[in-house]
Amino acid sequence: MSPLVGHPVFERVALIGLGLIGGSIALAARRAGAAGRVVGYARTAETRETARRIGFCDEIVESASEAVAGADLVILCVPVGAMAAVAAEIAPALREGAVVSDVGSVKGAVIEALSGLPDHVHVIPAHPLAGTEHSGPESGFAELFDNRYCLLTPLPDGDAEAEGRLARFWRALGANVEAMAPERHDLVLAVTSHAPHLIAYTMVGVADDMRRVTKSEVIKYSAAGFRDFTRIAASDPTMWRDVFLTNREATLEILGRFTEELFALQRAIRTGNGDMLFDYFTRTRAIRRGIIDAGQDTAAPDFGRVAARSGPKAGE
Amino acid sequence: MSPLVGHPVFERVALIGLGLIGGSIALAARRAGAAGRVVGYARTAETRETARRIGFCDEIVESASEAVAGADLVILCVPVGAMAAVAAEIAPALREGAVVSDVGSVKGAVIEALSGLPDHVHVIPAHPLAGTEHSGPESGFAELFDNRYCLLTPLPDGDAEAEGRLARFWRALGANVEAMAPERHDLVLAVTSHAPHLIAYTMVGVADDMRRVTKSEVIKYSAAGFRDFTRIAASDPTMWRDVFLTNREATLEILGRFTEELFALQRAIRTGNGDMLFDYFTRTRAIRRGIIDAGQDTAAPDFGRVAARSGPKAGE
Repeated sequence: MSPLVGHPVFERVALIGLGLIGGSIALAARRAGAAGRVVGYARTAETRETARRIGFCDEIVESASEAVAGADLVILCVPVGAMAAVAAEIAPALREGAVVSDVGSVKGAVIEALSGLPDHVHVIPAHPLAGTEHSGPESGFAELFDNRYCLLTPLPDGDAEAEGRLARFWRALGANVEAMAPERHDLVLAVTSHAPHLIAYTMVGVADDMRRVTKSEVIKYSAAGFRDFTRIAASDPTMWRDVFLTNREATLEILGRFTEELFALQRAIRTGNGDMLFDYFTRTRAIRRGIIDAGQDTAAPDFGRVAARSGPKAGE
Repeated sequence: MSPLVGHPVFERVALIGLGLIGGSIALAARRAGAAGRVVGYARTAETRETARRIGFCDEIVESASEAVAGADLVILCVPVGAMAAVAAEIAPALREGAVVSDVGSVKGAVIEALSGLPDHVHVIPAHPLAGTEHSGPESGFAELFDNRYCLLTPLPDGDAEAEGRLARFWRALGANVEAMAPERHDLVLAVTSHAPHLIAYTMVGVADDMRRVTKSEVIKYSAAGFRDFTRIAASDPTMWRDVFLTNREATLEILGRFTEELFALQRAIRTGNGDMLFDYFTRTRAIRRGIIDAGQDTAAPDFGRVAARSGPKAGE
């Protein structure tokens, strides 16, 4: 999918955090030959041990400072709420001219969290729009970023050469790289990701609470709609807690609009206003077509599940 | 997937409505040899012409009465709101002892709509929990019902032999057949399907309304959450209008509970209550595991999209 780069984009890449995203970066970098050497660190001994066993990094070290020492690219692959503490820890060990980036789903809060890093490094926040509902060091795979967007939110006084190199690295990993202002990123993501996730979490919680409808029935008959919500609502709890706490304003604004619209549709149901419902559902249908045309999903029936079922299943 | 039946379960099957479900029934029945002959009718000449061209029925006729004449199984594959009119039309033409069933997503309203059918037929409402976001005669495929549930909601004075035959027919089409009381069906489906669909429609509508966030950006960066909502919200507008209008009470009850929960989570975000969010998200994650264990979805990363992308895509 992504071409071999020929020579590494960065000589020594340090990954702080070895979950789904960190592990996938290591595997995708290896596939592309995009890094001379990948050094990894994770907070828990258990994750470090699993990462060593899988072997997706060239080396797993015992501290974040050790990982970043000598690195020309450092990527923080930790929940947004942990960024500030990691930044404080690595700051003294960062090499002059190093690129320090991240993969957080919120950019304003990350920029704030990284504001204390020394002037002699290049801070370039980034957000690959890719993931699954799985987490942990065993969940990564090299294809995760293929044909997905990676949004960079460069700082006003950023270094163009460093930004170009980071973009080249992500393209080597399979991603389409684009730049965006941090505030705009946080609003767009509130619409496309943060609010939908909170809504999915809520709906799954409601289903769990329905005492008259036993959990087993809800699970058993989940195929038509609810199933997709549970996938979204199975995402990493720590990551999502931090997303909502750090992108609070934009998420609450979108949720406010959502509630207004929901009340209007509920009222149409209550009053039997079929024309309003029909027109609304016709409008939303068109948006789907746009996403398929944009190459961000497949039109295959049932999401390609039928085809996927014939092959081996991951996690089973 | 489903074994050949050996001899047909029904001699002459009439399908009224030739969209995604009607077309898939015809194809699955042919695959299994479950019907001696399948006769189809659709309201519009255009759909009848398309169905003739595809050839998934043995015969396409020009009226519903003609289709049901002599049939020992009649399946109404039309939106719930159209059931009463179709029932009135076919009533005089139904053969004595015929099984009359349907595929509607709401059962209480369908039972009411079919209450005027003659006593000499067996009315057995049914609901296959299967579908895609596509509709129309070209969207059907023989595997649609494989490993999906088909819920029968037999009437209190129903005929056990006829119910057994209809169950056998659906099993031959690949489905797992279960019986359920109609009121319970309508409540369970409000949780697992109807409320989630309305919520997805609402969220997609909100995104469309966001003037500050252009439609193209929302579509472009839809990969993380929103994309799954748009798939759900692309479902047939007529079908879903009818579902909400006819399962009004159960849907509104679930939506009321949903709004309560959503407000509690919004409040947790606003007040920075990270523990509440973390605990909630941890609880919902467990439900996902249950669905995978129940065989109603795959744990493959990204819904198996990565694998599906290598093969040919439908609709492209």
